Amino acid sequence: MPQISERGKLMPSSPIRKLVPYAEEAKRKGVKVYHLNIGQPDIKTPVKAIEAVKNIDDKVIKYSHSAGNETYRRKLTNYYQNLDINIDHNDMIITTGGSEAISFALLSCLNPGDEIIIPEPFYANYNGFAVSAGVVVKPITAKIENNFALPSVNEFEKLITPKTKAIVICNPNNPTGYLYSKEELEELRDVVKKHDLYLISDEVYREFCYDGNKHFSAMNLEGIENNVILIDSVSKRYSACGVRIGVMITKNKEIISTAMKFAQARLCPPYLGQVLAEAAIDTTDEYFEEVYNEYIERRNFMVNALNKMEGVVCPMPKGAFYTVTKLPIDDSDKFCKWMLTDFTYKNQTVMLAPATGFYSTKGLGKNEVRVAYVLKIEDLKKAMEVLEQALEEYPGRTV
Amino acid sequence: MPQISERGKLMPSSPIRKLVPYAEEAKRKGVKVYHLNIGQPDIKTPVKAIEAVKNIDDKVIKYSHSAGNETYRRKLTNYYQNLDINIDHNDMIITTGGSEAISFALLSCLNPGDEIIIPEPFYANYNGFAVSAGVVVKPITAKIENNFALPSVNEFEKLITPKTKAIVICNPNNPTGYLYSKEELEELRDVVKKHDLYLISDEVYREFCYDGNKHFSAMNLEGIENNVILIDSVSKRYSACGVRIGVMITKNKEIISTAMKFAQARLCPPYLGQVLAEAAIDTTDEYFEEVYNEYIERRNFMVNALNKMEGVVCPMPKGAFYTVTKLPIDDSDKFCKWMLTDFTYKNQTVMLAPATGFYSTKGLGKNEVRVAYVLKIEDLKKAMEVLEQALEEYPGRTV
Repeated sequence: MPQISERGKLMPSSPIRKLVPYAEEAKRKGVKVYHLNIGQPDIKTPVKAIEAVKNIDDKVIKYSHSAGNETYRRKLTNYYQNLDINIDHNDMIITTGGSEAISFALLSCLNPGDEIIIPEPFYANYNGFAVSAGVVVKPITAKIENNFALPSVNEFEKLITPKTKAIVICNPNNPTGYLYSKEELEELRDVVKKHDLYLISDEVYREFCYDGNKHFSAMNLEGIENNVILIDSVSKRYSACGVRIGVMITKNKEIISTAMKFAQARLCPPYLGQVLAEAAIDTTDEYFEEVYNEYIERRNFMVNALNKMEGVVCPMPKGAFYTVTKLPIDDSDKFCKWMLTDFTYKNQTVMLAPATGFYSTKGLGKNEVRVAYVLKIEDLKKAMEVLEQALEEYPGRTV
Repeated sequence: MPQISERGKLMPSSPIRKLVPYAEEAKRKGVKVYHLNIGQPDIKTPVKAIEAVKNIDDKVIKYSHSAGNETYRRKLTNYYQNLDINIDHNDMIITTGGSEAISFALLSCLNPGDEIIIPEPFYANYNGFAVSAGVVVKPITAKIENNFALPSVNEFEKLITPKTKAIVICNPNNPTGYLYSKEELEELRDVVKKHDLYLISDEVYREFCYDGNKHFSAMNLEGIENNVILIDSVSKRYSACGVRIGVMITKNKEIISTAMKFAQARLCPPYLGQVLAEAAIDTTDEYFEEVYNEYIERRNFMVNALNKMEGVVCPMPKGAFYTVTKLPIDDSDKFCKWMLTDFTYKNQTVMLAPATGFYSTKGLGKNEVRVAYVLKIEDLKKAMEVLEQALEEYPGRTV
């Protein structure tokens, strides 16, 4: 029997995935499991967007253009122009989710063995895309004491080698909920410019910025127009994760023409998802206000509830719908597993994401978990009650 | 401005793509262009499959399982069992088109620098997936004089090195339309077994076998159950190229668990396409008979028309809906471009795919083109008339 590949062995298996069988087992036993481990919101997809798919009159579901339907790309241009991101429909390639946009960026810009710097904790799947592309991740640790703000320029400078080709950021951040300020991004711009790096900016949570904070896109950083690659997706914006429609945007024509070759090899992004995504651009402000109000309520409730628990420290996130929280525990992998296998409270338990999966530096995240506030407030209330009880009973409690 | 990657530069740009702007220009001038260059059939997608999408009652378009919806995988198992391919729903990962299935297979099984042997002419995008995965393609030439039959075992043996990890076949073949016999596949099996290679078998044209010939799947080759990876797709079977739903199947559990890590990193295949593909499994035999009769008529007409032209040699394809045809021309790239830029007949012309793009060996395919019989018979008739005239007028005619 032939051997699987080295990169196949290197491919990380996320700590959340490892917990899934335990959650399933708990459910089989009749335990109610509150899922605060996932980025799948319970918010409805805009009705008109779903209707657009239900109203198609295509007789043949054909390949679309490899860069995505031109009607969709043209309309998407308006969406970005309303945000003062001035691009045209040839500056973008519609991708199969934000995932493929990241892969195209790495494949087009980096050689195997090249390095990317990513502030950690970071979206765990960046590791997977890096392994697929043969690229080495160099983490730079953001600290919970600083609410996970951008590490200083000095810290970045220390990590830069001749092999460093790109910095990857996620803004607003998954998993921390941190929103980078314009000033932080300008500091990053200076580093990018000085060392002529690529800046890959994942902004899929753009619509989720709270407390009057405005999102500043890396696309609007002056002086590095040819270095910035924007990663975007409709998954979170319209609660349409399953359509798998994202986009890679850059003003750098050479990157677009290179990425197009990868796009052509895989033929096209999903047609039906593009129909939904195109219609979703007309989603009303009322929809977003309702979603915004819902998340604000959930966030405020959850963060307050967490901070009231003894030994728990939870920064107030300014964006996205996650927070990384410090718990009085010895080992987040053990604790999250224990919650599913050895603990119930009133026949309920909570599934959380161990933060270890979001750090690249070994040993970090052992007393942190990512909590997603993607459930309705009644469920969040019960989940917090369960979590508080679990922390009291957990044998590995540290404080 | 930072440099793009070496693999980005290496990524091939297909000769067909290069012709697209010329075809667009011809159309702008009012010339009718018959597209025999593409694999996009004009056959209708089964009505009930499209209806399934139009009838969804989902309120949230959620992520599906990373391996694809379990209902779809279970139902797909029945489809394969009806073909005597005995697998269960855990032996498969639903992918974003056959394209992603090939990528997962290469990433999971091969290291950068490893070699794959592919009989040429072959589906041009295999080159792209190979470059993405850092894998080296070693072509083995199938000859038009033999109707593009499988090259002999000796020819394979000559190419095998310690770096050879897999053989890739496409059966029925795109671009040649050749259908491998059970005997040919058993010879290949012996090579695969002897050298403990992977056999990656792309069978997306399975439903298109003519003249009473039966398709024999590599999944049913005895003694190499753990070496075979089946690549499949609903694109051609149900004329639903745009849904981007494929599947990677293998009985090798280690490959499945490795590929699952790549599948999890990109979250899931498109949900809406899965709904369509699941419903499509119930497509009636009448649909396939109608499609079959249509293709047989087109093939017979086209191959006969080609062989009647002076200096043209066209093998009779036994499967798929393509043929690679020898023309009395000096250079297929030049000829195909000339047809679009310098020639019209009654204000019409034909777009063909230069065969150079399907050969990895430099210089091959210069007097061959791939012709796809994906247009209705009236259009094919006109296209053949135009092609005959073009061959008479072409300044680079060789005979």
